[in-house]
Amino acid sequence: MLNIGILGCGRIGHVHARSLQMVDGARVVAVADAFVEAANALASGVGAKAMTADEIIASPDIDAVVIGTPTDTHFDLIQSSAKAGKAIFCEKPVDMSADRIRECIKTVEAAGVPFLTGFNRRFDPGFAAVHARIAAGEIGDVELVTILSRDPSPPPVSYIKSSGGLFRDMMIHDFDMARFLLGEDVVRVYATGSALVDPAIGEAGDVDTAVAVLTTASGKICQISNSRRATYGYDQRAEVHGSRGLIRAENVRENNVEIANGAGFRSAPAQHFFLERYAGAYLAEMMHFIDCLASGRAPSPGIRDGLAAQVIADAAARSLATGIVVELG
Amino acid sequence: MLNIGILGCGRIGHVHARSLQMVDGARVVAVADAFVEAANALASGVGAKAMTADEIIASPDIDAVVIGTPTDTHFDLIQSSAKAGKAIFCEKPVDMSADRIRECIKTVEAAGVPFLTGFNRRFDPGFAAVHARIAAGEIGDVELVTILSRDPSPPPVSYIKSSGGLFRDMMIHDFDMARFLLGEDVVRVYATGSALVDPAIGEAGDVDTAVAVLTTASGKICQISNSRRATYGYDQRAEVHGSRGLIRAENVRENNVEIANGAGFRSAPAQHFFLERYAGAYLAEMMHFIDCLASGRAPSPGIRDGLAAQVIADAAARSLATGIVVELG
Amino acid sequence: MLNIGILGCGRIGHVHARSLQMVDGARVVAVADAFVEAANALASGVGAKAMTADEIIASPDIDAVVIGTPTDTHFDLIQSSAKAGKAIFCEKPVDMSADRIRECIKTVEAAGVPFLTGFNRRFDPGFAAVHARIAAGEIGDVELVTILSRDPSPPPVSYIKSSGGLFRDMMIHDFDMARFLLGEDVVRVYATGSALVDPAIGEAGDVDTAVAVLTTASGKICQISNSRRATYGYDQRAEVHGSRGLIRAENVRENNVEIANGAGFRSAPAQHFFLERYAGAYLAEMMHFIDCLASGRAPSPGIRDGLAAQVIADAAARSLATGIVVELG
Amino acid sequence: MLNIGILGCGRIGHVHARSLQMVDGARVVAVADAFVEAANALASGVGAKAMTADEIIASPDIDAVVIGTPTDTHFDLIQSSAKAGKAIFCEKPVDMSADRIRECIKTVEAAGVPFLTGFNRRFDPGFAAVHARIAAGEIGDVELVTILSRDPSPPPVSYIKSSGGLFRDMMIHDFDMARFLLGEDVVRVYATGSALVDPAIGEAGDVDTAVAVLTTASGKICQISNSRRATYGYDQRAEVHGSRGLIRAENVRENNVEIANGAGFRSAPAQHFFLERYAGAYLAEMMHFIDCLASGRAPSPGIRDGLAAQVIADAAARSLATGIVVELG
Repeated sequence: MLNIGILGCGRIGHVHARSLQMVDGARVVAVADAFVEAANALASGVGAKAMTADEIIASPDIDAVVIGTPTDTHFDLIQSSAKAGKAIFCEKPVDMSADRIRECIKTVEAAGVPFLTGFNRRFDPGFAAVHARIAAGEIGDVELVTILSRDPSPPPVSYIKSSGGLFRDMMIHDFDMARFLLGEDVVRVYATGSALVDPAIGEAGDVDTAVAVLTTASGKICQISNSRRATYGYDQRAEVHGSRGLIRAENVRENNVEIANGAGFRSAPAQHFFLERYAGAYLAEMMHFIDCLASGRAPSPGIRDGLAAQVIADAAARSLATGIVVELG
Repeated sequence: MLNIGILGCGRIGHVHARSLQMVDGARVVAVADAFVEAANALASGVGAKAMTADEIIASPDIDAVVIGTPTDTHFDLIQSSAKAGKAIFCEKPVDMSADRIRECIKTVEAAGVPFLTGFNRRFDPGFAAVHARIAAGEIGDVELVTILSRDPSPPPVSYIKSSGGLFRDMMIHDFDMARFLLGEDVVRVYATGSALVDPAIGEAGDVDTAVAVLTTASGKICQISNSRRATYGYDQRAEVHGSRGLIRAENVRENNVEIANGAGFRSAPAQHFFLERYAGAYLAEMMHFIDCLASGRAPSPGIRDGLAAQVIADAAARSLATGIVVELG
Repeated sequence: MLNIGILGCGRIGHVHARSLQMVDGARVVAVADAFVEAANALASGVGAKAMTADEIIASPDIDAVVIGTPTDTHFDLIQSSAKAGKAIFCEKPVDMSADRIRECIKTVEAAGVPFLTGFNRRFDPGFAAVHARIAAGEIGDVELVTILSRDPSPPPVSYIKSSGGLFRDMMIHDFDMARFLLGEDVVRVYATGSALVDPAIGEAGDVDTAVAVLTTASGKICQISNSRRATYGYDQRAEVHGSRGLIRAENVRENNVEIANGAGFRSAPAQHFFLERYAGAYLAEMMHFIDCLASGRAPSPGIRDGLAAQVIADAAARSLATGIVVELG
Repeated sequence: MLNIGILGCGRIGHVHARSLQMVDGARVVAVADAFVEAANALASGVGAKAMTADEIIASPDIDAVVIGTPTDTHFDLIQSSAKAGKAIFCEKPVDMSADRIRECIKTVEAAGVPFLTGFNRRFDPGFAAVHARIAAGEIGDVELVTILSRDPSPPPVSYIKSSGGLFRDMMIHDFDMARFLLGEDVVRVYATGSALVDPAIGEAGDVDTAVAVLTTASGKICQISNSRRATYGYDQRAEVHGSRGLIRAENVRENNVEIANGAGFRSAPAQHFFLERYAGAYLAEMMHFIDCLASGRAPSPGIRDGLAAQVIADAAARSLATGIVVELG
């Protein structure tokens, strides 16, 4: 039985704690949060102990930590957890600075601890099936990837201001998905965007509607588009065009009911947002983490995947700012 | 070049005349209608001569007739056309009386003239593909057939009164489709119905909402349901469950556009009615007829198919009237 | 906090026990099974006590029982549980004999205990949405209901022999769904069937392919078709044609991925069987039961719904055996 | 009755001649082709006279010309036809050189003759419905346009060499569609591409897999992707994300049949290529042209739309060649 400590008892901490209740071979023994009440609430909900993060990391009985705290605390928690020999599950983004992620990589690899970066979408049954069937050769060589992601509504402008911008906060998921589906490193990035949803987002220096084009060394191309607002639910689609066929994962609708009348055939909106759409993905992600710890396999996506997506996000932000196409190292 | 005479210049006569304009190897040379003006209009539209039906049938230059006159005139036209050696394309139903159809069969078979019964749905690209793939063994043995047909709106009650009733007027198409898809003779019929769309239809002695269950000697079963009204267009679906899989033909929608918002995803209604939905079927049907005349193959469905559907319709009407299950033959 | 006792620790007992772990306000405190090991296994899995059924029913600390034992034991358990004042959740069918269900109704209603009949499909998000939207008037008056149910593969012939036959064992679910969607009592039943999937099923005196037509007093009609085998997964569909539109619940596929190549566009099979397809329904069903106990509302479907479906199943079996249309009292 | 002369009797000339046979108020009176046999064949097929292009343009009895000759002959034919006062329907691209198109604009506008540029996709029922519903405000303000076009297989490399390159030969259609759906002028173009389908295309200096990002002055963004090969048919999709919803036109499949078995649900491939997919569009396009001539309305898309798409194609080609983002005028 693996003993897990949850660092951060907000919404995502709850999701991971609940997932762990459904995973055999692991249990949540301790939780921590800067707000003691939040820690106590989750602790009593899952039958764990509320402790401080330092206590959890120092505890010899705890095998792994799940980091779901604010991004600016990730760095220190990763450093100390790795040095303490804990296996680490860290929410994305690992850090807002690629250089700091590189420092984390050194520590994590020196310590030799397992590390999973929380790119949950890789574990969505649809996207996972797309990846598996590409790997099985069903569409031949990958040539063109198209990723469309739209949130149901923008976060508060106050959040936007400290988010690192759309490319680092939102499209980062799509950059990881692009790497997952392209199966090859990205060498060139073009990105552009506009503030069409809310002018206040533009005034805050960010965009809410954006696209990126990623190219790999062998010439595979990925197009991504994002909007911070979709009236019809959480829009999460990807398709891959290959030499032998096309594969795509469509949106998941709230139910499979269709109603028809003079206005046509109407089916349900897409599931509202990530908690609904990715409920299964969060569980599968945690099962993968625990399974890796139990079997000794390396979790994937790892910390280097966290870095790679961040590097692309930085390049996209630079492309937007400068209007030029950015070549990656 | 085959010379064709059109008997009956109403809506369906126009459809067949226009189809013939697109078919190589045949041309409309004469048209006839009880209303001389109708005949003149179609004649000038397609560059043919307006004549009487008798003149057309007597003309040695005419190879085939297309009968699209009112049902109660079919019998005489078939008799005289067959005796004159004309190939015959006759709209469904061949006649309202099975006995009279049997008489026509004698004459037609004695004359040895080709005969096509106008069950147009067999030529719909969807239903034809269903049939072809069953024949190719793709779903194994046929076990259960489900046919759903709904008209957009009921005909006038005055029409209903002389229509022979829903089973002979509307479900007759589905009885033929059942035979087409079952690939086996029907031996037992149960039918029931209600007047739910318009009480005046009930007062006229008919139903507007009806179902039938057909069983074959080997135990294959077909379910049919009809309504005289569908708010979402002309509903025409069939599915066949077999030992190795399921095949189904869905409705054809007005276009392939989908619009999404908070109310969900909305696509276009089904094509409005038979002229839209079966435009391609009418053309394919005529191509088949002309192709058979040119090649010497027997057209299918033939006059015996017209009889078989009528016999089932009669049995269904009797089942509705008596509440019992009717055994055939 | 409501204390629940699980009677029967087979597959469905596990499902309900796990559901109860996710429902606030209730907990499994005791479980029973004729096989002590089965009881012990489930008890340790959910942190409950293994007891005998009699002990559970006699325990003053237990508020409700969930009966998931073999059908022939339901009668006694219902009688004693009701007399002991327990709320009852009973798997379908309540009993194979309508008369015995009537006896249970007397006892249950005399005792005034809440009773839920486990027609889980009413709680499926799709079918529940269909029902809710009909109730909201979205399709006007219900006229024609079409229900298609097919299991992935037949049970062993040994099971078939003691199952009460397809209508009581399998189509019973569809009879309840018919009543749920028709919103009106059934007054007439026609059913027929064949052994097409496996001749051994026919030799055992049962059918594996069957249809039924149900009619209500006002003339609404429901068609049902069943097969014991579907190569493409668990086929569970229903559609309702009303005066103002059509509503339908389609199958739930394993995922939302589509792959395209020269053979066309291929998407995933339907979810394999009831444990996958109705996972959400089982949970929603239990939430409804617990919510009713907490709020004092009567659970629905109740024991009289269990009887009504059984009466239709008996009539269908008689119609199949005799070839006649059966009128219900 | 309008008298039309067809210039160019290849595949597209045939399409337009046949469309004209179905359009009231116009007839093909003359056809011309550099290959006299081709002209004679079409002439006899549609009951027209084979003449030279010069004779047609000089003929006072001819009201309009339909130019479907090789692109490098368009310029001269437009010049002389416009000067002769003929209405002009000209296949895309108007010319490979934007400057020469500008010269044609001068002549055409000086002559005041109606001019339709043959961007047939605007007349596809799906794309036309998308445009109409955007215009009706159904999705609010346009923000993001996504266009995916893939041909079933690449043309011969010999054709590629003289085609002007993918952007001018293939993506030109999508540039026009982008303008049609954006409703605003494009001010910035980024394009990239690879030769992934066939290395010989790369050796010929072209790409076969390409994307473009177009931006308008107000910040609306369009993404386009092209491939010269799709195993599943002619892939022609567009979607528009707006402030109030999403609208999309899906591919048109060969039929509406679906077959299910253990491998899942399989439906037909997309219609094979442009002659099948755009049969209706070609007819609607011609009806629009004739309707404009009859009513005095200006045809749309006009010659300036032909120029605008060419300018974008030139910019895309330059972006590909230089790796920079190109600003338009």
